[in-house]
Amino acid sequence: MTTAATPAPPPGPEASDPVALGWMTGFPPPPDKAITYADGSFRAFPQLRWSWSHVRQIVPTVNVWRGTGGPSPLPRAEQDLDALPVTTMGGEATTFARALVDTYADGIVVLHRGRIVFERYFGALKPHQPHIGMSVTKSFTGTLAGILVADGLIDPAAPVTAYVPELARSAFGDATVRQVMDMTTGLAYSEIYTDPSSDIFALRRANGMAPPLPGVPQPSLLEYLTTIAKQGEHDRVFAYKTVNTDVLAWVMRRASGLSLSELLSTRIWQPMGAEEDAHYTVDRLGIESGGGGLNTTTRDLARFGEVMRGGGSFNGRRLFPTSVVEAITCGGDPAKFAPAGYATLPGWSYRTQWWVSHDPHGAYMARGVHGQSLYIDPKAEVVIARYASHPAAGNVANDPITLPAFRAVAMALMG
Amino acid sequence: MTTAATPAPPPGPEASDPVALGWMTGFPPPPDKAITYADGSFRAFPQLRWSWSHVRQIVPTVNVWRGTGGPSPLPRAEQDLDALPVTTMGGEATTFARALVDTYADGIVVLHRGRIVFERYFGALKPHQPHIGMSVTKSFTGTLAGILVADGLIDPAAPVTAYVPELARSAFGDATVRQVMDMTTGLAYSEIYTDPSSDIFALRRANGMAPPLPGVPQPSLLEYLTTIAKQGEHDRVFAYKTVNTDVLAWVMRRASGLSLSELLSTRIWQPMGAEEDAHYTVDRLGIESGGGGLNTTTRDLARFGEVMRGGGSFNGRRLFPTSVVEAITCGGDPAKFAPAGYATLPGWSYRTQWWVSHDPHGAYMARGVHGQSLYIDPKAEVVIARYASHPAAGNVANDPITLPAFRAVAMALMG
Repeated sequence: MTTAATPAPPPGPEASDPVALGWMTGFPPPPDKAITYADGSFRAFPQLRWSWSHVRQIVPTVNVWRGTGGPSPLPRAEQDLDALPVTTMGGEATTFARALVDTYADGIVVLHRGRIVFERYFGALKPHQPHIGMSVTKSFTGTLAGILVADGLIDPAAPVTAYVPELARSAFGDATVRQVMDMTTGLAYSEIYTDPSSDIFALRRANGMAPPLPGVPQPSLLEYLTTIAKQGEHDRVFAYKTVNTDVLAWVMRRASGLSLSELLSTRIWQPMGAEEDAHYTVDRLGIESGGGGLNTTTRDLARFGEVMRGGGSFNGRRLFPTSVVEAITCGGDPAKFAPAGYATLPGWSYRTQWWVSHDPHGAYMARGVHGQSLYIDPKAEVVIARYASHPAAGNVANDPITLPAFRAVAMALMG
Repeated sequence: MTTAATPAPPPGPEASDPVALGWMTGFPPPPDKAITYADGSFRAFPQLRWSWSHVRQIVPTVNVWRGTGGPSPLPRAEQDLDALPVTTMGGEATTFARALVDTYADGIVVLHRGRIVFERYFGALKPHQPHIGMSVTKSFTGTLAGILVADGLIDPAAPVTAYVPELARSAFGDATVRQVMDMTTGLAYSEIYTDPSSDIFALRRANGMAPPLPGVPQPSLLEYLTTIAKQGEHDRVFAYKTVNTDVLAWVMRRASGLSLSELLSTRIWQPMGAEEDAHYTVDRLGIESGGGGLNTTTRDLARFGEVMRGGGSFNGRRLFPTSVVEAITCGGDPAKFAPAGYATLPGWSYRTQWWVSHDPHGAYMARGVHGQSLYIDPKAEVVIARYASHPAAGNVANDPITLPAFRAVAMALMG
């Protein structure tokens, strides 16, 4: 009779502080402080507390140029939110400052009516440094898709194959653009971060965020998308599968003739007056990961949130029509979302790569694994950008603290 | 009896134009337009005409932050230099415009008294886009070393091992910092770009600019430096070997506690008001290639030339003492340089990682393979920054056009 060893819990926020642990310090870093791509340590915990702020040192990237102008102003009206009381979903009393630490925050910027009311950095992140957005990337892709719809370059009702004929024999062969935008396709593709045999790991090898398996031909990202088979029916239920976003980005490139980095630079990054360049991770052919590879500063993520809150206008400039935002905030069908069983997101829906709460404030979010989040509360006139390096990939682990904390901030700022 | 096939000459500048050839266009690029890291195509000609402007899409990089200020002004006083007559070293009559094309220029910025008098871009390069400097990188490393000498953090007369004990059993075990600065070490290390067995290719695998050999343990860049054995004596002759620069950069990191990217950002990039961030390629442990991995825009390279021409001052701001520049422009010992046999550089010397002409104008250069160059003519008050993608690595192939062209520009601007 054997006793299964209980895995030790991951080190807590203070014990995993990447600066205190000295990752990648020393010339060269000693073996026990080294983080590399080839051995996969860059995505292990606690190493990822360093890696998520240093992705471009680990994999190739493409720049998202901010243009030649100065950064758009973000006026400051700082408030002390540290002691703000927060009650977690489990009913525990905490504070906003403690909530940030307990969700392994790397950086946070809170805007109220376009002014910075709160800004903090932790761990390995600095204000000017880009942090990986993980699936927050998807909401940028979705918004850019909406812009191309408004341009008349993409018809959401059209079949995906009208833009990308190579997908004809895949699961996407009979899907519409709207279905991939809203992730209501039926795909034989699993995205379970705790199961090493899950298809998400094959996607990572294809998009360059994991090394190829030795001796096995490695498809590029777009080649990999053509191999996804159908399972079930389209348009029945929401099923969160990153390959939808990468298909959407493929449609966008074909419709516009531009790469994702060119689209983001010209349609959002330059006109919104980003403070720093952003960058995407790329596969071996230079194709951006539209599902998870965008890196931005925390402040620029907040600026993008403010663009959305402003209905496509920011800093006195219109970037895109209000209809683009309205087509997102209207939300998807909660009945299609409910079967996915997100315990922390009751009544929510997914629309054009955004998570929509349908709450009385009309809040909606961009969300990425390990706690990446952009929270927009239109009624409270609040935008919260938070990058993090939580040990758990799935946000169900941090939502019970994060969502009440964000709501508490919004309520406090509404006054 | 067999007849050796004569290899076809590489395509000329127009026939190799990377935009016309459509490298990396299409989503995804078709196989005959693809350029990848793994297959080495990124450094083949004519592919490198695209690659040298897109290095960060091919390998991991670390950012050199430009800081929060606006770019320093570079006033314009443009002159038409296209038709300027140039006589090549071979005695052929050409023009400056033709000389640029014939040396496969990607970008050029000519400054006279700090004003842009001429600026052009070709091929795959754009004004805001960084291009790899190759060994132009070394002159940045050397200048930063000079700054640390002025700081009192590095003693050029000290043994290298005073800073890096790990080098004790290598060729550098009995070398001084001055010897590695001036490349007068005696090393069993060859740098012959046309010989695939040359040690330069082992250095590339170590610094990440070539994939590791399958099944062979791959040392990191700093590990590789400890393996270089001695050959001959130190301090006798100049011998151009990139590992000296990487050893110098290692000394600098140990002396300052800062990475090369942090040193360049804080000591030069931020105070000079660079227009764009720069970046270094890094090895698998995040260590920058101080011998060849720096990428900058052409304009920012020109700005750095103007900092040097100004004796460490630029845009009304002192970046470092004039003594740092003087310790470079004084030059090395031409008698130690002559045996190296550079036919196009008679009477020159090498000092602190710069090439010094000892001509009546006191001209000196940063030089990198495939035509990268920063030419500073103090008497003519001229700085020329030129990035290129010449088919030949060695500059002996383009010097016969380049050097007369640069001198003709300087003479014309002196008036």
